[in-house]
Amino acid sequence: MSRTSSTGLQLIGNHFSGEGDQLFRAFDPVQQQWLPTEFREATTGEIDTALTMAAKAFIAYKKTTSLQRAAFLQAIAEEIISLGDELISVASSESGLPLQRLQGERDRTTGQLRLFANTIAEGSWVNARIDTGTPDIRQMQIPLGVVGIFGASNFPLAFSVAGGDTASALAAGCTVVFKAHPAHPHTSHLVATAIRKAVMRTQMPEGVFSMVHGTSHETGQYLVAHPLVSAIAFTGSFKGGKALYDTATRRAVPIPVFAEMGSVNPVFFLPGILLEKGPALAMQLLQSVTLGVGQFCTNPGMFITPSADAAAAFISTLQQGIGHATGGPMLTPGILHAYQQGLDYLQQEGVQVLGAAQTVPDQATPYLLQATAANALEKPAICQEVFGPSSLHIHAGSIEEVYTLARKLEGQLTATIHGTEEDLREHAGLIDILREKAGRIIINGFPTGAPVNHAMVHGGPWPAATPAAGTSLGTAAIYRFCRPVCFQDFPVYLLPPELQDHNPLGIWRLVNGTFAKMADS
Amino acid sequence: MSRTSSTGLQLIGNHFSGEGDQLFRAFDPVQQQWLPTEFREATTGEIDTALTMAAKAFIAYKKTTSLQRAAFLQAIAEEIISLGDELISVASSESGLPLQRLQGERDRTTGQLRLFANTIAEGSWVNARIDTGTPDIRQMQIPLGVVGIFGASNFPLAFSVAGGDTASALAAGCTVVFKAHPAHPHTSHLVATAIRKAVMRTQMPEGVFSMVHGTSHETGQYLVAHPLVSAIAFTGSFKGGKALYDTATRRAVPIPVFAEMGSVNPVFFLPGILLEKGPALAMQLLQSVTLGVGQFCTNPGMFITPSADAAAAFISTLQQGIGHATGGPMLTPGILHAYQQGLDYLQQEGVQVLGAAQTVPDQATPYLLQATAANALEKPAICQEVFGPSSLHIHAGSIEEVYTLARKLEGQLTATIHGTEEDLREHAGLIDILREKAGRIIINGFPTGAPVNHAMVHGGPWPAATPAAGTSLGTAAIYRFCRPVCFQDFPVYLLPPELQDHNPLGIWRLVNGTFAKMADS
Repeated sequence: MSRTSSTGLQLIGNHFSGEGDQLFRAFDPVQQQWLPTEFREATTGEIDTALTMAAKAFIAYKKTTSLQRAAFLQAIAEEIISLGDELISVASSESGLPLQRLQGERDRTTGQLRLFANTIAEGSWVNARIDTGTPDIRQMQIPLGVVGIFGASNFPLAFSVAGGDTASALAAGCTVVFKAHPAHPHTSHLVATAIRKAVMRTQMPEGVFSMVHGTSHETGQYLVAHPLVSAIAFTGSFKGGKALYDTATRRAVPIPVFAEMGSVNPVFFLPGILLEKGPALAMQLLQSVTLGVGQFCTNPGMFITPSADAAAAFISTLQQGIGHATGGPMLTPGILHAYQQGLDYLQQEGVQVLGAAQTVPDQATPYLLQATAANALEKPAICQEVFGPSSLHIHAGSIEEVYTLARKLEGQLTATIHGTEEDLREHAGLIDILREKAGRIIINGFPTGAPVNHAMVHGGPWPAATPAAGTSLGTAAIYRFCRPVCFQDFPVYLLPPELQDHNPLGIWRLVNGTFAKMADS
Repeated sequence: MSRTSSTGLQLIGNHFSGEGDQLFRAFDPVQQQWLPTEFREATTGEIDTALTMAAKAFIAYKKTTSLQRAAFLQAIAEEIISLGDELISVASSESGLPLQRLQGERDRTTGQLRLFANTIAEGSWVNARIDTGTPDIRQMQIPLGVVGIFGASNFPLAFSVAGGDTASALAAGCTVVFKAHPAHPHTSHLVATAIRKAVMRTQMPEGVFSMVHGTSHETGQYLVAHPLVSAIAFTGSFKGGKALYDTATRRAVPIPVFAEMGSVNPVFFLPGILLEKGPALAMQLLQSVTLGVGQFCTNPGMFITPSADAAAAFISTLQQGIGHATGGPMLTPGILHAYQQGLDYLQQEGVQVLGAAQTVPDQATPYLLQATAANALEKPAICQEVFGPSSLHIHAGSIEEVYTLARKLEGQLTATIHGTEEDLREHAGLIDILREKAGRIIINGFPTGAPVNHAMVHGGPWPAATPAAGTSLGTAAIYRFCRPVCFQDFPVYLLPPELQDHNPLGIWRLVNGTFAKMADS
């Protein structure tokens, strides 16, 4: 592993800074040892400087064209690739995730940057609306300002320094102060250096991106409470997201927090499909539950069957399968500890163990648990997320109980239904209930795996996310960091090109109520 | 004035209810007397019933087609017209607003309902996004649920029972529980009966709209805190909006509050145009300040000039003009009292009186006040909204001071700049600053008068509104009450028509990243 003198420091604008004296190190969960590199926690002075530079950079950055920002995002993707294998090996040692998974995640990250680059380069994303009456009114989306972004532990690349939140904020024209996740500081450092190179190469204003380290809640809270921040993006636990939300909404000037806080992602199995292919579905479910040691926001943490008869072969296959499932090291000792505590809690609450894999020291053991629908309705706490490779089977006594359970669900990132055509036609009402509960509804699939495209929604009603009207994946994520503004009776020399009569950018616009790509007639 | 036995009661679903024993009456600010009709405050039980019916109605209402909802909105407009002159005379007696103004406001209200009807009938508003890969993902906007809406005092028709918030919520597919403004309960009652008739005529589910009366903050807070409410819309004071925001964000399940809380709507005059046509601008400004006794959210409560020399003729015209300006009765005695208190406060803080109209008992007197930019920078409180026919002249010592003042402004609904072409080209930087401060930027016009169309933004950064990314006027207002959901691998028989391959509604969609109106190829 190569070392540079800047490793361990904050990136403030294009410069590295190490004013603080609080040090921390990352832990290798596979080798079960602390990694050698020491990182410095950011001081409040360093955070102030990063934010001041970000606010100043915003004045220039908001005036860049979509094409300039697209080139910047493309350059970030290229510089990430240029980091080469070091990025993958460092990320693996800090997260315990396998190299192949991290190579895939790097592709996802660069693909995401390029997707946003292409979207803004096309230009129609600004939602231009023109009404040419008297007065003449023209609306478009403009960036909010400086965005504070918190990296997630479970995707050290795709939901971290140059992940979807950063990509969508920079695409929108916002500047970013990034709070690195303390579980993968070196990975974060490398990606930050890639962004720094892209900033300099594409001549973006210094301060458009800064990154600070910190292990304490205070660092994060300081960032959220700071008057120069206009919005926050966060991916992580409910507890973490809720704490930031509370701070942001109690500020003198409240700001939006776009928090993705996870969910149990219920999977409903209908009777016909259970009879038709219960054992095959059981194997697919097990694979989804244990994929990546269950460390996905969309891990199926709960599945529901409507009757003992229909589910018999499905359940017995699960019981056999779970014994042969493989767990693995988790991202951090804290996450492993929380997983074990979650399983203990469920068992204390009377939840049965349906089966478990073999225990390996310092690794997460895959578990299947079981409760009745009556238990779940009586004690909703047993339906809350246990982050890791386990899933809770809810055994309903009847299809009516399945509906009741669905109605009582709290907000989810995803909800899934498995059924034959006959099942699905008969239970369209169940799908209708689930539509109110989640951001993504899946038929005959599994929630793990969320493609990044234009149509994806990764979000949902509280407590899965806030606000419900947001997504942290897909190109619609850009709208979190924008607001509409309208220009009344502006002479053409003051109008942004997006709103000029002759439509110089050739974008789609709503002109006097009609979508058009031509110049105004 | 005709009387019906239901007047004074809540409208709960399609039935009138009067369980409470707390009575109140409206006040006629022109006649200076209490009006005879007694209204009953809603009990918490009545609010519970309204919300329970609204939640039940939502299950059916969200499944109505856009065309069905468009017919419902059209029917509401028709039924409002059918109320005839009684609506206008009742509204005038309760608000003190002239008949002609209220006739215009009725047109605005019915026009707004029809604009939303046409927008949803066209259908593209759902922002359909289709990615046909593996998996197949299809996104559209869906309604949030039950919306609680608070009527404003200053537009007893257009920002009240069937105003823009109700129109956009019903258009989106949300059901509504409306809290009537206690200053115009009889007007509210009449419009509610019109909506009731439209509900029955177009066979909308009972409970899609209910209206409750209440004079206390408790009634409003009870509605906002209720678990069955999914979003709140409010137009009124900062204090009122902030109280609802605090309640909504501290709930166990927080909900969004779309609050339009007013602003001072600064108007900047640049040197060239002051020299060129200062006196004409002064007369136009006076008209805007005193229009409707200054009772508009977009009233220009502050105007800024850069130098004494350039502004001399402008100011002397203002001083002459204000003496001949006419005030009038305000909407309520409370609003008149607050206006007078606001003026007293400014004078206590050392703000000069530039001129005033003649005082008439029980009426608001138009005022022009004056402070230096240094005063305003030192005491930002003097720049806060005084609701009524007054405006504060900020007399800057230099153009640099104008920029400094602009940078220090808090969030505004509107910001206006008057300038010659030379002024505007020279001070594009000022426009750039103001773009960050307001939802609508106006060149060479006045902020009063906000057309309802597709491009209008009536909102802005805190404290003008929350969230900054919203508008309470114009067709984009519908998105406040929606969230995106995506459907993964749905068979065609389960997909909403908006997302089916053959595009049966013929709407614009983003298909694999390209806007298209045709069926998928």
